[in-house]
Amino acid sequence: MRKVVFGGASSLDNFLAREDGAVDWLLWGDEVADIMNAFWPKVDCIVMGRKTYDVAMRDMPKPKGKKAKNPYGDVKTFVFSRTLTAGNRDGVEITADDPGEVVRDLKDQEGKDICIMGGGELARNLFEAGVIDEIGFNIHPVLLGSGIPLFHGMKCQIDLELIECRPFKNGCVYLSYAVKN
Amino acid sequence: MRKVVFGGASSLDNFLAREDGAVDWLLWGDEVADIMNAFWPKVDCIVMGRKTYDVAMRDMPKPKGKKAKNPYGDVKTFVFSRTLTAGNRDGVEITADDPGEVVRDLKDQEGKDICIMGGGELARNLFEAGVIDEIGFNIHPVLLGSGIPLFHGMKCQIDLELIECRPFKNGCVYLSYAVKN
Repeated sequence: MRKVVFGGASSLDNFLAREDGAVDWLLWGDEVADIMNAFWPKVDCIVMGRKTYDVAMRDMPKPKGKKAKNPYGDVKTFVFSRTLTAGNRDGVEITADDPGEVVRDLKDQEGKDICIMGGGELARNLFEAGVIDEIGFNIHPVLLGSGIPLFHGMKCQIDLELIECRPFKNGCVYLSYAVKN
Repeated sequence: MRKVVFGGASSLDNFLAREDGAVDWLLWGDEVADIMNAFWPKVDCIVMGRKTYDVAMRDMPKPKGKKAKNPYGDVKTFVFSRTLTAGNRDGVEITADDPGEVVRDLKDQEGKDICIMGGGELARNLFEAGVIDEIGFNIHPVLLGSGIPLFHGMKCQIDLELIECRPFKNGCVYLSYAVKN
């Protein structure tokens, strides 16, 4: 069965962005590029919350005179929203359905892995639904002090199994875990 | 100058204990014992907040008919509290003075390293005062979902430099950092 993966970068104090969404503190390098280059070919489906979608649409370069399109190109993309009108919008599937059920259905279909993009609110929902298989984070050597949390409060405990621990030259540490569902 | 060190164990989602203070999820092993055995001989002073002191006093084994004593034996111990009466109490120095100033004074004195015990509220105060030199955490392979936070919100960003990244056989990862003050 295809895997559902939640990954990204975080500060040591559990933030994925500053309060205004800024990620100016992110460090890049060959080592993180290697991980991204190995990750994306394994994925053919992205799920995200509406707030992450808004940021992706805002930050995407738009060719002059052309309409906004799915910022993730040909990768099948689902956006969970209780406020946007459901349906296909410029190549993106907007849905108000329960994220746990949608992702469980997707896992039963043929395909490559499914990536949870961005925010922790959708991830909380999917952790509680028991559909996340792997997580992987590039922990940055910084305490931001405030920001948008990576892991939100949850009703349940999630046990993990360490897959990989890889320190980078720039002081980041990449940790990946299997979720014991 | 003697170093001020903040260390302990945490869940991957930034909790040091469950909401009721329980740490039943902690994993032990030879590797963490090695780190503790190397750490304690370098320390001759402990600072903590009143809540951590209450837990230490409650959990300390008390010989029958004997009075409670400093749970940390001969190690010089300071407890910061705005509610307890200031002064020496059974070998522990209770103080309502500003933690940043007290710790800065302690750093100027001769001695071994100074350990910040337990809670994140005192640590936040000391991070903001710029007196913490090193942090070290044994990150456990679990998302607790709720609990007492390790890192609290702060008014400032704290930049770190990775000193060590050591994965354990039990799935924990020990990360230590120098604080760039």
